[in-house]
Amino acid sequence: MSATTLFESLAEELEERIHSGALSAGDRLPSVRQACLARGISPSTVFQAYYLLEARGLIEARPRSGYYVRKLRRARAAPLAAALQAPAPAAATEVVISELIFDVLGSTRDAEVVPLGSAFAAAELFPLAQLARCGARAMRQLPPRQLTAELTSGNARLLQALRRRYGQHDIALAPQELVICNGAMEALGLCLQAVTRPGDVVAVEGPTFYAALQALERLHLRAVEVPTDPRLGVDPDALAELLARQPIAACWFMPNFQNPLGALMPVARKKALVALLARHGVPLIEDDVYAELYHGIQRPRPAKAFDQEGGVLHCSSFSKCLAPGYRVGWAAAGRFAPQLQRLKMMSSLATAVPSQLALAEYLEQGGYERHLRSLRQALAASMARARALVLRHFPAGTRVSQPDGGYFLWLQLPAEVDTLALHREALEAGISTAPGQLFSADRRFRQALRLNVGHPDDARVEPAIAKLAQMAAQIQRRASP
Amino acid sequence: MSATTLFESLAEELEERIHSGALSAGDRLPSVRQACLARGISPSTVFQAYYLLEARGLIEARPRSGYYVRKLRRARAAPLAAALQAPAPAAATEVVISELIFDVLGSTRDAEVVPLGSAFAAAELFPLAQLARCGARAMRQLPPRQLTAELTSGNARLLQALRRRYGQHDIALAPQELVICNGAMEALGLCLQAVTRPGDVVAVEGPTFYAALQALERLHLRAVEVPTDPRLGVDPDALAELLARQPIAACWFMPNFQNPLGALMPVARKKALVALLARHGVPLIEDDVYAELYHGIQRPRPAKAFDQEGGVLHCSSFSKCLAPGYRVGWAAAGRFAPQLQRLKMMSSLATAVPSQLALAEYLEQGGYERHLRSLRQALAASMARARALVLRHFPAGTRVSQPDGGYFLWLQLPAEVDTLALHREALEAGISTAPGQLFSADRRFRQALRLNVGHPDDARVEPAIAKLAQMAAQIQRRASP
Repeated sequence: MSATTLFESLAEELEERIHSGALSAGDRLPSVRQACLARGISPSTVFQAYYLLEARGLIEARPRSGYYVRKLRRARAAPLAAALQAPAPAAATEVVISELIFDVLGSTRDAEVVPLGSAFAAAELFPLAQLARCGARAMRQLPPRQLTAELTSGNARLLQALRRRYGQHDIALAPQELVICNGAMEALGLCLQAVTRPGDVVAVEGPTFYAALQALERLHLRAVEVPTDPRLGVDPDALAELLARQPIAACWFMPNFQNPLGALMPVARKKALVALLARHGVPLIEDDVYAELYHGIQRPRPAKAFDQEGGVLHCSSFSKCLAPGYRVGWAAAGRFAPQLQRLKMMSSLATAVPSQLALAEYLEQGGYERHLRSLRQALAASMARARALVLRHFPAGTRVSQPDGGYFLWLQLPAEVDTLALHREALEAGISTAPGQLFSADRRFRQALRLNVGHPDDARVEPAIAKLAQMAAQIQRRASP
Repeated sequence: MSATTLFESLAEELEERIHSGALSAGDRLPSVRQACLARGISPSTVFQAYYLLEARGLIEARPRSGYYVRKLRRARAAPLAAALQAPAPAAATEVVISELIFDVLGSTRDAEVVPLGSAFAAAELFPLAQLARCGARAMRQLPPRQLTAELTSGNARLLQALRRRYGQHDIALAPQELVICNGAMEALGLCLQAVTRPGDVVAVEGPTFYAALQALERLHLRAVEVPTDPRLGVDPDALAELLARQPIAACWFMPNFQNPLGALMPVARKKALVALLARHGVPLIEDDVYAELYHGIQRPRPAKAFDQEGGVLHCSSFSKCLAPGYRVGWAAAGRFAPQLQRLKMMSSLATAVPSQLALAEYLEQGGYERHLRSLRQALAASMARARALVLRHFPAGTRVSQPDGGYFLWLQLPAEVDTLALHREALEAGISTAPGQLFSADRRFRQALRLNVGHPDDARVEPAIAKLAQMAAQIQRRASP
């Protein structure tokens, strides 16, 4: 069992005992030393489990004494265990979602609006001044010719830095495999185009990230949703059935901290997924933009790490973890890398050099890991606080996800609450949300809601969550008189 | 008659007289004063005509004496008057050109290779240090939230600066009409997608810019070529016939300094073109990236200036005239602007903020016009020198274009010279070229060649042109024993 699984299963066991009442408020947890001895695990595993429970607001450290179970506020909502959702239709759906997405997102950009519907964490969490300095230095030193010499693949220094990071995760890339793109969004779209033709069917998660649906719509593709567990991600068995039933041109999944569910696919599932797709010769487009934002002890490995056939097109970016607005992403497109190079050249030629150089310089000078550590801590703590508020305030019957990374919570509200209506009411009150309908080609998830909890220093967020809960309760009451 | 046309026609008349022998080497031209009186035109018109002839190497100024006809070297090649090309096929062609383009262009990126095949002018011609300073200052002062607040349309300061420039050319834009993109390339591709569906037919120039062909190929569109005059651009009458014959979803043209011909569509043609397309309800995608690089006295107006119906999608960028590698372009997409906003959001979300801000800061501080003046002079002089070399060295039967802007020459070589073969031989000798086959979906223009003459300070260029001419002559001799 991997270290990740060990500390997570310890945390889950303890959480179970807290929720069941076997451990109650004020009880002292075993010391780290006792736990190590009792279970034959390392101190860091115990420490990480306790840290996670602390981040989730379940236990607290008392100086020179140990960890204690906190007094739990009466929770009305409950954790989201399995997907409580309408079954996905078996047939592929033509995608026409962008109008709704555009309307909803367009309304969330106002600085006056509390950004619970936003896709971005707070910009203050990123080392922007340092990046600006790095960019200035690197641009000053750039030989002019380099501006147009390194076109399609990207800047050599940045490519080198990226290759090094893949190497740290034991992922060997082919020499020309990386292409730097205008954000992960462009990388993902180009990968999708590299492996499909108009009219093809692409398997996505249900719920899925709306930008995937938009990309499908733009390329005239059809979507079929694979049942997706809120903790464990896509179910390889369900996918196997789907593959047996109809031709699938590609899969577009997010195995690490899936947007919007936050699901983290266990290693065994990732391996099974990659093997299954290799047998069918179906490429996997892996959107991995949240992997660095784990709340646990180590970066979860991408499905790419288990790919022997070059069938995984791994896409990521710096937009969520380091440099929002710089628009630097990339694809390691496996055996499709040559097609990707061509498509990049054919669509936007190259990625902005000032952004690439700022990142290359920053990565070379060190400090990225330190930044990531503090970012992760801030996001984990912020999520724990927000989640506790949701559990306390939202009406009974609400379920909330429990992600171990990223900065999104996924709520399933009682059947009477249409979240598009809630979204509109909340917006009137200056609060944006991302209603569940955005996350499916057939607009299911009418009772679901994605909340951005990545704004730890925004004092408006916690009252906004409470206010949102109140509005949801009102809608529920109005619907069931 | 506009000022532009006046000075051009005077220059043409004098050039005609020089070539015919009516004016011979050492003859003194009428003084500016005399010419003004004789023709009833302004001194600046005369001056511009003389300046143009000087740039073309036909006359020279002698201090305190006036302008004299230079001794012409024996020219073997001749100016390209009308298109000497195989007629375009009437039927639309499926586009599969990218492989060839990728191969050819991939081979031209080596710094050791003389960049006659490049698409870019020399990076040393641009105010890179100043741009870097502007970028550094602007990024330092940026409120963090702005990094993700101004997503799809672009940075407000840059949008404002662009709107001001359109205003200077008397072009009124609708409030939300501009979308900033990742270079003109992305803007053009998104415009194309906004007005077509897979399988549609799009009219392009013949020869046309290869990136247009690539965009068509990527979007599964078919191309039909409209006969294009090397001086006057697309023929509206030929286009009218085409429109009567078959449904055309859109046109993609470059009315100003067309790549590769350098053609400049006269104002009357632009007006006729816009009116014709408005009658048929066919959108015009106008690629206007070279307009600022005029060698005459004023920026030629785009077709967009004559559009009353919002049917012209005007695209341009800073990549050719100010900031190569920054990847900042834009579209003013007329009545298709809302679709363009959506497509931008759906494909790459936003354009890199550091690049946008560097340009906004630069444009606000002034100095752009001064830069453009010196850039234009450098390019005009460089083109005149290169053109004179082509005329002198290339085998008889060669025709060469005479653009009044930009930095490309288009050569039509004798029938025996396959320019793809010439390209390969030249590359062996360390010289890149852009063979004519790149510029047509059906790979016509086998005897044509585009030469980049935008590297005035590269001492290798002039010997390379002579060398290329020599190779062409050898190929010709081998082919006709």
